[in-house]
Amino acid sequence: MTSQPEDADRRTYSYLGPAGTFTEAALAQVPEARAQIWRPVRNVGEALSDVVEGRSDAAMIAIENSVDGGVSTAQDALATMPGLRIVGEYLVPVDFVLVARPGTKLEDVSLVAAHPVAYSQCLQWLSRTLPGHAHIPASSNVASAMGLIDGTSDADAAIAPPGILDHHELELLAEKIGDNLNAVTRFVLVSRPVAPPPPTGADKTSLIAELPDDHPGALLEMLEQFATRGINLSLLASRPIGDELGRYRFVIDADGHIEDERMADALLGLRRFSPKVIFLGSYPRADRVIVRYPDRYSDDVFIEARDWLRGLISGEPES
Amino acid sequence: MTSQPEDADRRTYSYLGPAGTFTEAALAQVPEARAQIWRPVRNVGEALSDVVEGRSDAAMIAIENSVDGGVSTAQDALATMPGLRIVGEYLVPVDFVLVARPGTKLEDVSLVAAHPVAYSQCLQWLSRTLPGHAHIPASSNVASAMGLIDGTSDADAAIAPPGILDHHELELLAEKIGDNLNAVTRFVLVSRPVAPPPPTGADKTSLIAELPDDHPGALLEMLEQFATRGINLSLLASRPIGDELGRYRFVIDADGHIEDERMADALLGLRRFSPKVIFLGSYPRADRVIVRYPDRYSDDVFIEARDWLRGLISGEPES
Amino acid sequence: MTSQPEDADRRTYSYLGPAGTFTEAALAQVPEARAQIWRPVRNVGEALSDVVEGRSDAAMIAIENSVDGGVSTAQDALATMPGLRIVGEYLVPVDFVLVARPGTKLEDVSLVAAHPVAYSQCLQWLSRTLPGHAHIPASSNVASAMGLIDGTSDADAAIAPPGILDHHELELLAEKIGDNLNAVTRFVLVSRPVAPPPPTGADKTSLIAELPDDHPGALLEMLEQFATRGINLSLLASRPIGDELGRYRFVIDADGHIEDERMADALLGLRRFSPKVIFLGSYPRADRVIVRYPDRYSDDVFIEARDWLRGLISGEPES
Amino acid sequence: MTSQPEDADRRTYSYLGPAGTFTEAALAQVPEARAQIWRPVRNVGEALSDVVEGRSDAAMIAIENSVDGGVSTAQDALATMPGLRIVGEYLVPVDFVLVARPGTKLEDVSLVAAHPVAYSQCLQWLSRTLPGHAHIPASSNVASAMGLIDGTSDADAAIAPPGILDHHELELLAEKIGDNLNAVTRFVLVSRPVAPPPPTGADKTSLIAELPDDHPGALLEMLEQFATRGINLSLLASRPIGDELGRYRFVIDADGHIEDERMADALLGLRRFSPKVIFLGSYPRADRVIVRYPDRYSDDVFIEARDWLRGLISGEPES
Repeated sequence: MTSQPEDADRRTYSYLGPAGTFTEAALAQVPEARAQIWRPVRNVGEALSDVVEGRSDAAMIAIENSVDGGVSTAQDALATMPGLRIVGEYLVPVDFVLVARPGTKLEDVSLVAAHPVAYSQCLQWLSRTLPGHAHIPASSNVASAMGLIDGTSDADAAIAPPGILDHHELELLAEKIGDNLNAVTRFVLVSRPVAPPPPTGADKTSLIAELPDDHPGALLEMLEQFATRGINLSLLASRPIGDELGRYRFVIDADGHIEDERMADALLGLRRFSPKVIFLGSYPRADRVIVRYPDRYSDDVFIEARDWLRGLISGEPES
Repeated sequence: MTSQPEDADRRTYSYLGPAGTFTEAALAQVPEARAQIWRPVRNVGEALSDVVEGRSDAAMIAIENSVDGGVSTAQDALATMPGLRIVGEYLVPVDFVLVARPGTKLEDVSLVAAHPVAYSQCLQWLSRTLPGHAHIPASSNVASAMGLIDGTSDADAAIAPPGILDHHELELLAEKIGDNLNAVTRFVLVSRPVAPPPPTGADKTSLIAELPDDHPGALLEMLEQFATRGINLSLLASRPIGDELGRYRFVIDADGHIEDERMADALLGLRRFSPKVIFLGSYPRADRVIVRYPDRYSDDVFIEARDWLRGLISGEPES
Repeated sequence: MTSQPEDADRRTYSYLGPAGTFTEAALAQVPEARAQIWRPVRNVGEALSDVVEGRSDAAMIAIENSVDGGVSTAQDALATMPGLRIVGEYLVPVDFVLVARPGTKLEDVSLVAAHPVAYSQCLQWLSRTLPGHAHIPASSNVASAMGLIDGTSDADAAIAPPGILDHHELELLAEKIGDNLNAVTRFVLVSRPVAPPPPTGADKTSLIAELPDDHPGALLEMLEQFATRGINLSLLASRPIGDELGRYRFVIDADGHIEDERMADALLGLRRFSPKVIFLGSYPRADRVIVRYPDRYSDDVFIEARDWLRGLISGEPES
Repeated sequence: MTSQPEDADRRTYSYLGPAGTFTEAALAQVPEARAQIWRPVRNVGEALSDVVEGRSDAAMIAIENSVDGGVSTAQDALATMPGLRIVGEYLVPVDFVLVARPGTKLEDVSLVAAHPVAYSQCLQWLSRTLPGHAHIPASSNVASAMGLIDGTSDADAAIAPPGILDHHELELLAEKIGDNLNAVTRFVLVSRPVAPPPPTGADKTSLIAELPDDHPGALLEMLEQFATRGINLSLLASRPIGDELGRYRFVIDADGHIEDERMADALLGLRRFSPKVIFLGSYPRADRVIVRYPDRYSDDVFIEARDWLRGLISGEPES
């Protein structure tokens, strides 16, 4: 007997698997995802397709500074797959462990399995601690460890995320072996289009926009849509559109919520300006920091101005 | 018997009198003013007070490049008297005549009566034609001629607007004696607040705005409200607020009508930005020139963007 | 015997005369002008022609908020007469007196001589103090009083600048009769082109500039030349160029000196941008208020950047 | 006997090795590098250290859209290692081949060795052509093929750059198997600081700049340094500075050469604005496309404005 709800009643969440990845650690931060179906997939494209095509209700994907790789891919997928909406943001420290088959000792390690990206991020620690080691490339951060367990790898140890220890019997040889202890990856939870979660005062709005043409100042004009409404950008990344070198789209995170008057007004301006703008969602910031902005951009000011304009058009004297 | 309507049914128009002024010539261009009561007043303040206090339905005042004087006064009066709205614009060529008592000949003229401003605007002609003349100052362009008629002036001739000949028996000694034959004065018809006349495609919108403070770039930011919506300004005049040197308000004529989406949006931006903005009216341009603007600022684009935003907030997929 | 230098050794200053005008009061503030030749002229054009054609070394002219009239004329003259440079600025309170022939009492006054502009600026006081008076127009602020002295005027009293009392035997009936006690007129001293007086830290730079064409945003772009270098404008006035309605030149006073790095850089930007820019001069402000600006626009920052650029071009490593 | 110059006389070029990489293909485009020493290294950090520490004269590194990986790493290395200068730009098509030991046939292939990034870029072709294959991860694009040769790999075939065939006896099973046939990688040649190569009219200038602080509009202000001088940006990429989420530096490629007046002026503006700006170099564009810009930003205009300013300061009349 189990207290689990029936599968038919449960929601499905796709994530980059298998169990033990950083992405799984991000999904574990979502209260609504507890006791629901977690569907491991092989890449971000598969995760987003699951959502678009209805196999999942939502997908957790890395969007910035990832060590699972695939961040550009995630931005490009969001830019090209219609019908997606970000509904939440989660931060996971990038924190590697060195694991081995039970009984292994650190001084016995000479062959280290690791995804090439993870390997390069632990290189200082490895050079210092295991100067004579050799590297066996693995196809993912978890595959490195799985090879130890299923015997398909000749490696003595593997670099993996800490989550691996929740799922497998492995010896922990060392932890926090990444060269940058402050590294963190930002993940987002993506669903089909829904009304945005209500404003909390600590929100961000994610967008992807193209510029009207390649004239000097087009990017400037796009950014003015935000600056002239007192909106700060926490992310501005250019991504090649891919049809030719030198053509970019811009991935934008702006402080505030679509239901904030200043953000709504900025979105109107952006829509009028840009040949293609994708609204990815307004959602609470992972760090819950309240957005500050000058008083002159408060909702009151926008509402008062609209009342004034309405009065002018109807012929009322100005107050 | 007369076909005139009863006075009680007629509208009253104040204008800078007496009969014969350039302002009267402007009022003569208003079809609705025909056969109504024309009320001559002594200055622009009196004309506007008539409107505000209900003695008149409208007032015709010079607003730019006037030779009746008083243009700054008009701008300042509009800035400080609440409850006024511009409903029409009229152009009158600045065109002086030299007149005298019947029987006078040009070669007999040695003393010329003229308002000092009019005098200075005909000085080249006078120096050439009447090199030995002397100037007797008059208090207005019409008073110069009235003194000839009522015998209170010692002058032999007077400089006056052409309209003087419609009202008085005077000898026309010379016409078009102004030094700048292209000079023109712009007049506006002012009423109490009413709904603006409907857009014609050839409209202008008049505003007076103060800047939030004296920091570098405040004027810039104000002008961006127009430039970022593709709106051209046909007039930008700074006027001292009068409380101290260096503080200005700005008198603005912008191409377009308050019911144009781009203008409405600019007015909202201006209202949010400026500590004090006065909407003086949207009305057809005197020159009837259709306002041109880039397609990206057309009404359609604004309406489409609002529909898009509404869809996003309600959770619809983007189209 | 006299301590006056010979005329041949003395400098000549033109000013709007005759003795007693506000312009004479401005000239009296110039230490270098003492014991030199003061040449009264009839209008600002004559004053400036004296300088250009070498009859005078300098001319004092009203440039803002004048009650002697002629301010627009001064701005337009500076815009169209080449070969002039402003070298100093002076402020004179606009302060009228009511004067009469000796022995006259205030209660005897019924006819008041006044220049029409001065008359309008004292109208509140006159209406309150002499409600039954009548106005006799005069051609200037001093001519009003001269008519009393030489008997050519029927007036009982005249409105004139306080300076009139230094030159003529007149009864002072009332002082400070202007309706705005804070009114002040700004004068400038104009010479032929010379190197600007050295920077004092409390300087202004006067310019006249035209815009490249009538596209939305041209004025904006001109103002950015100043704003992007942290330069505040204390005056921005549009003046019709005069060839057709809607074409303007801009009269600009900018805080700072041409030898300040940020101002020199702004002037370079303005010169490159504007089809016609006239440098009228850099000179100490009349109010001696030190110009404040953000540290990032200090001379050091400009000089350091140039050194850096020079190093890059020569191939030095960056410091 | 050999025609090679002595090693002591030859220049050394570091590149991502071993022989056969895309980076080697880029280096092969450099005429000056022929018959010089080519030093293969393992990553971009090593290549740049070689230059900084004098082991090499120059290094070829991938800087945009690379499939050898490491582009962000390259941008970050240039941002943090002082004493480097870009002197040339080269484009290499991203074009994979499938190779095997001699005698192997395509239909025999079931295990494919590939770097994970290259693998993902050929996935469509592999799924279509070898639907039943399995992937063996390799640590680099060349290592995949080397394992076939030295027998350390169980794979039947390997994905590699076309250059591999110049260096090793391998069977070419298929070419142009990448999913995006237009993909191209941009490489730059990096040396120690030297005077930039002379302008060709088809140049770009590479920069890295930080923003003064996180206020809305700081990025805007940085971009204005270019837009207000008519300079187009061909690359704008934000890179996390790495100390905390949300802090970025910007990698910029601007059209033009540091010896162009408008670029020199923009660099001065940028230096004054930015707390940290790194000049990476001005060098000919790989595509040799002449840079177009409005006439108002030509060298003449800058030089004329400087002459004008100099004249003003020395007191000459304006011409």
